Amino acid sequence: MTRPNATPLRIALAGLGTVGTGALKLVATQADLLERRCGRPVVVTDVSARDRTRDRGIPLTGLNWHDDAVAMARTAEVDIVVELIGGADGPAKAVCEAALDAGRHVVTANKALIARHGVALAQRAEAAGFTLAYEAAVAGGIPVIKTLREGLAANRLSRVYGILNGTCNYILSTMRESGRPFEDVLTEAQRLGYAEADPTFDIDGIDAAHKLAILTSLAFGTRVESDAVQAEGIRHVSALDIAFAEELGYRIKLLAIARRTRHGIEQRVHPCMVRSASPIGGVEGVLNAVVAEGDFMPSTVVVGAGAGAGPTASAVVADIIDIARGRITPMFGLPADALEPLTDSPLSMHVGAYYLRLMVIDRPGVLASVARVLGEEAVSIESVLQRGRDPEEIVPLVLVTHDTEEAAMLRAVARIGEHDAVVEPPRLIRIETL
Amino acid sequence: MTRPNATPLRIALAGLGTVGTGALKLVATQADLLERRCGRPVVVTDVSARDRTRDRGIPLTGLNWHDDAVAMARTAEVDIVVELIGGADGPAKAVCEAALDAGRHVVTANKALIARHGVALAQRAEAAGFTLAYEAAVAGGIPVIKTLREGLAANRLSRVYGILNGTCNYILSTMRESGRPFEDVLTEAQRLGYAEADPTFDIDGIDAAHKLAILTSLAFGTRVESDAVQAEGIRHVSALDIAFAEELGYRIKLLAIARRTRHGIEQRVHPCMVRSASPIGGVEGVLNAVVAEGDFMPSTVVVGAGAGAGPTASAVVADIIDIARGRITPMFGLPADALEPLTDSPLSMHVGAYYLRLMVIDRPGVLASVARVLGEEAVSIESVLQRGRDPEEIVPLVLVTHDTEEAAMLRAVARIGEHDAVVEPPRLIRIETL
Repeated sequence: MTRPNATPLRIALAGLGTVGTGALKLVATQADLLERRCGRPVVVTDVSARDRTRDRGIPLTGLNWHDDAVAMARTAEVDIVVELIGGADGPAKAVCEAALDAGRHVVTANKALIARHGVALAQRAEAAGFTLAYEAAVAGGIPVIKTLREGLAANRLSRVYGILNGTCNYILSTMRESGRPFEDVLTEAQRLGYAEADPTFDIDGIDAAHKLAILTSLAFGTRVESDAVQAEGIRHVSALDIAFAEELGYRIKLLAIARRTRHGIEQRVHPCMVRSASPIGGVEGVLNAVVAEGDFMPSTVVVGAGAGAGPTASAVVADIIDIARGRITPMFGLPADALEPLTDSPLSMHVGAYYLRLMVIDRPGVLASVARVLGEEAVSIESVLQRGRDPEEIVPLVLVTHDTEEAAMLRAVARIGEHDAVVEPPRLIRIETL
Repeated sequence: MTRPNATPLRIALAGLGTVGTGALKLVATQADLLERRCGRPVVVTDVSARDRTRDRGIPLTGLNWHDDAVAMARTAEVDIVVELIGGADGPAKAVCEAALDAGRHVVTANKALIARHGVALAQRAEAAGFTLAYEAAVAGGIPVIKTLREGLAANRLSRVYGILNGTCNYILSTMRESGRPFEDVLTEAQRLGYAEADPTFDIDGIDAAHKLAILTSLAFGTRVESDAVQAEGIRHVSALDIAFAEELGYRIKLLAIARRTRHGIEQRVHPCMVRSASPIGGVEGVLNAVVAEGDFMPSTVVVGAGAGAGPTASAVVADIIDIARGRITPMFGLPADALEPLTDSPLSMHVGAYYLRLMVIDRPGVLASVARVLGEEAVSIESVLQRGRDPEEIVPLVLVTHDTEEAAMLRAVARIGEHDAVVEPPRLIRIETL
């Protein structure tokens, strides 16, 4: 029989925002469960937050308060420092570094930090002989880091992709259901707390790009390079394109995709048309989903809540339990020095199908001109949608291509955009075969 | 930098059927990946199988062959014994016990063994100070054991359910798509290798019951008790009921469900109506899926290949990597002696909605009689489908109830079955709200 160890596992918590408060609540609520899972009690002994007086809905008595989170990480007598301050640099990074250097394990939910400084932190953790765990950094409560790093560790992966930003997925789902325009739905999402007052990070794909950079490293054993992710957000997705997508059997999702091509690793975040019946075509609202494709396990899909206090706390505390049980893994599944440099596969060499929507003056010969240009650039057309006839008025003209190289597609679109009858910039959306 | 350890991790493999051969192939194919993941080479040094001469499509030279798998488990100079013989007792069990007693870790894909003897094996492993890992025992290559035991370890779960038998899911999916009857599709599944010559284990729900018993223990911290699972198979699912289900917005799935009720833990495997748009309503063909519902992480869905040489080998080798990295977990997430006795929540107290299909002689007053009996048993009707009128001929009459207690429903059905105009035994299918 395994005897419970009476010495508690002591935790210092840096940051008491929504997620920090959620983690504190979880540790208090599940005290007996955690004790049984870890073989010893788990207690938060030290905290650091800007505002000591704010009512967080939970008792904060008996905790050692620190004004300086970095000093806490260095000096508090704890086993684990949990960093929930956020931000790629500044105090968040300093807290993690100080904790590792002082011989404490670190748990963080900080995607920007890992995406920017993951390899250096992994080296630092290995040198110190401690671990930095970050399950909560990608897809919130879904154990996707564990799934890629351990569950599928026997596979060579060829592609990993997912819906990694709940804000964008909520906006796109709501636009589809309601037919309302982007700005309208964004305002509503802000009111409901699904989008920040400054939504840039989410809707321009930066948040998803950070998360993808982490998944890429786990999937392909390469060094994390978030700058190599080509990110495009959802600001330009129109209700019209969503309606056409539906008519063609697709949904528009902000997808984060990393795949091995013959040129290297392609990493991209952009609005994407995916079949409604595909593994994640039906993942709606604020949910996140990740799909990993391996050589022995062809496809593994995980779906769940990608944000929020409860789910994020669930992932943070799962990391704490792993550490308590001695389940330690190199940060990216391999020793930091064994990670390969990332060879970027440029998007110009991307091969895939495309949705092209033009606003054209309805007159004879326009389709013929467009088709001729596509033909000259060796882009082959799979289908054409022309809805309604309205001579000399502006109407949409939609084309779906067969697989083609992006560079050729862009050349064709530039030429088409110059056509007299094409009155708006052409809209191009990549189609992903899932 | 973590220095690679030159001493290989040695493995003995008991059983060289489809899965054993798959595991051998994976270890050979991914040798360099495994070495980087584990920090040392991974080699299969010893094997035991009945037929030494059969062509398995891979070279078997340089291996130490053993005629007696139990003797191999006891004496081979290896770090891990992989048991892929199968069966709840006999040599499979003896191999696992001998290996643990001799101080080797064990990896197995044997659901029947874990479902029947899980707690005793966990006690034995803990006493020996070694581990018995079994990721491949449930849902093949999907890391569902890891997801429940580690990824969601911070949650109290209220329900775990899934599609755990690919054979049944293939048959039900094909019946729905083709409209063909059960026997027909079963024969086809046998021809395609999706069903065994003797399909009893799969189609009567026994295989799914074994897997569910394991998930129940992981989800609720209770002792594994596969006898407490109420299992009913898919033999009686008719094309007619599948068509009615579709009309009502449902699909019929063989679901394995464990949930906490106010009476204890309910464990059941049976054909079930689930909303087509629910998280697993769209999981078709041989795929498996598991959903876990927790208090901090509301719902986590995992989907993937639940059987086959590749996926099963993927899970077996993931366990080997875990052991190589020292990632050891109590078998059911808690020390064996901390597992609680299972308090069974009897199915008679199950509360849920029901689909009831009667074959009745089409004459006035039949529906009124049926409705009266249901009313007398306090069963409330949500909807009624009567398709086509054909006076004095036999027609189907379908009723969907609101939530009701199973005992009341069964009393009502028994009385309805005695009605003169009811010419076949009533068909009752539980509806699960997902």
